[in-house]
Amino acid sequence: MNDLTITAAYYRGDKSFAVEETTAQQPGPGEASVRIAYCGICGTDMHVYHGNMDARVGLNRIIGHEMSGIVEALGYGVDSVMVGQKVVVRPLDHCGDCPACDAGHFHICHKLKFLGLDTDGAMQNIWTVPAHTLHVLPDDLRMDHAALIEPVAVACHDVRLSGLRAGENVVVIGGGPIGILVAMVARDAGGSVVVSEVNPNRLAIAQKLGFDTVNPAAADLQAAINARTGNKGADVVFEVSGTQAGVDAMTAVAATRARIVMVAIHAQKPQIDLFQFFWRELRLIGARVYEPEDYEKAISIILSGGVDADTVITDVTPLAEIQKAFEELDSSPTAMKSLIKVGDEA
Amino acid sequence: MNDLTITAAYYRGDKSFAVEETTAQQPGPGEASVRIAYCGICGTDMHVYHGNMDARVGLNRIIGHEMSGIVEALGYGVDSVMVGQKVVVRPLDHCGDCPACDAGHFHICHKLKFLGLDTDGAMQNIWTVPAHTLHVLPDDLRMDHAALIEPVAVACHDVRLSGLRAGENVVVIGGGPIGILVAMVARDAGGSVVVSEVNPNRLAIAQKLGFDTVNPAAADLQAAINARTGNKGADVVFEVSGTQAGVDAMTAVAATRARIVMVAIHAQKPQIDLFQFFWRELRLIGARVYEPEDYEKAISIILSGGVDADTVITDVTPLAEIQKAFEELDSSPTAMKSLIKVGDEA
Repeated sequence: MNDLTITAAYYRGDKSFAVEETTAQQPGPGEASVRIAYCGICGTDMHVYHGNMDARVGLNRIIGHEMSGIVEALGYGVDSVMVGQKVVVRPLDHCGDCPACDAGHFHICHKLKFLGLDTDGAMQNIWTVPAHTLHVLPDDLRMDHAALIEPVAVACHDVRLSGLRAGENVVVIGGGPIGILVAMVARDAGGSVVVSEVNPNRLAIAQKLGFDTVNPAAADLQAAINARTGNKGADVVFEVSGTQAGVDAMTAVAATRARIVMVAIHAQKPQIDLFQFFWRELRLIGARVYEPEDYEKAISIILSGGVDADTVITDVTPLAEIQKAFEELDSSPTAMKSLIKVGDEA
Repeated sequence: MNDLTITAAYYRGDKSFAVEETTAQQPGPGEASVRIAYCGICGTDMHVYHGNMDARVGLNRIIGHEMSGIVEALGYGVDSVMVGQKVVVRPLDHCGDCPACDAGHFHICHKLKFLGLDTDGAMQNIWTVPAHTLHVLPDDLRMDHAALIEPVAVACHDVRLSGLRAGENVVVIGGGPIGILVAMVARDAGGSVVVSEVNPNRLAIAQKLGFDTVNPAAADLQAAINARTGNKGADVVFEVSGTQAGVDAMTAVAATRARIVMVAIHAQKPQIDLFQFFWRELRLIGARVYEPEDYEKAISIILSGGVDADTVITDVTPLAEIQKAFEELDSSPTAMKSLIKVGDEA
């Protein structure tokens, strides 16, 4: 393609974005250029907005990675996708030469580049990425719904690593955007799911989505789970709250030999009831991002309606108004997933 | 059998034992009476000696569970063993009617009775137990060595739950009696084992047993493990120290997707670097006591010499001098496993 003028949103620090014209990056060998339809705002993007990641992303970065789009151009040697196909990007680029890559754990590569943080991202009309990161979408998948694939893939990874079996009792601690996706994916896998959340607005959304809920600030969560499970406790627990209270709850509600999946990012080092790990032979499973099969699972679960995309997507804003979208998401008590509509025609 | 006068050692509180004559308990239906040869002193027995478990064991308890013996008498309905066979007792009696038992996790039964703590134990000539707890020994296994089967079964359980594969790098944090057994069982399974320990006497024993060692008070453990593994870290870590420093080390030395087995009993709630669990997808595996297959593995590994019983057993004392044995073990800087020789003829 010739030089192409596009619009991009640059993070400039201090909670501000500048929407400017720029030139689309040409696809090099092994790369593909994707015309972006939608891009969701991730919790990590909110951390960028708040200035917590300036050292990593700088002050001239196009962020965004929860996207959907259409292949626009291909560099040399790319035969895995075709121009015109609907795609999403799995925004991980691994080094191929570290102990994690040697072991086949490419998604937790020691030198992992996260596209849209360590490189420019999807808050621009044309995003050029390594072609190995693309997943082709079914033609009948809606492009706004497809922007949920990345966070749903996180949930699919969490649920897959938990080894959840149909009929097992599940507690999701924390009913924010990721927690509620974990809850939906766990239910889709046959789990009997309770969502624990203190925020009334989030509780209301979880209830609207059909989940049993407990507000641990108002009721005894452990007693509620024991009553529900005949004093067995939960077979699988997802800690998505990132709080000391959540860490306390995760061991309290766990059955003997329960699997506890650590989804949250704990920047502090919380205290953990290790005695319970010994006494009940609990297992703690760290889970980070996703692997290719989690993307394929996420695509199928969104297509099937196993994730209620229309309820999860609470806001859609054009790219020109990205500043307003971040400000509103930052202050909204009811927002779940806010999408930026990047393409005019999407 | 008729009433039989035997000798038993009673824990009387305040670091004291009374060795007295008593009458052997007759085997009821489903029970077997075992003539005890040797009984090791467990770390738990030392906790009893120190008065930390008086509320649980009382002040008239015959303790002891790391034993070997010969079947002396059988109650009605016992056809799993024969009089005269060498045996060990797996000292766990489960309720059969709790969620853990329902799930087949009998060894972590919600109402588990530990024989020798919740009931009288093996520091007496004749010990009567549920016959389902017996494992028959090969005729050529030495009875003093057989008294190590119980603690070795703990180590076999830990190593089995870790999923250790031959060639993997292993760090054992804490080189006390259990740590050193874990190290030997892990080496027997093909692991490349480093023992981390601060006590010079224990370091010397670990080295005598052929292990590479690191003293984390004198050297950088993480750097040592990285150097040994090409910056990969350890595939399997056993935390046996029960200390905050050990908990800090367990995440520091772990490779991506490493399995960390929680062997130690942490009475306090230590701080854990949960971020590393997320970032490297670590797994924490709680492990408590043993299951029948761990006993069978322990029997075979002691018979094969995979555990160097003669080095581990540092003291043997007659039952009449049990008081002295506890006092010496409590003050000895070099003791590993101290056995009580319960039977005169053993």
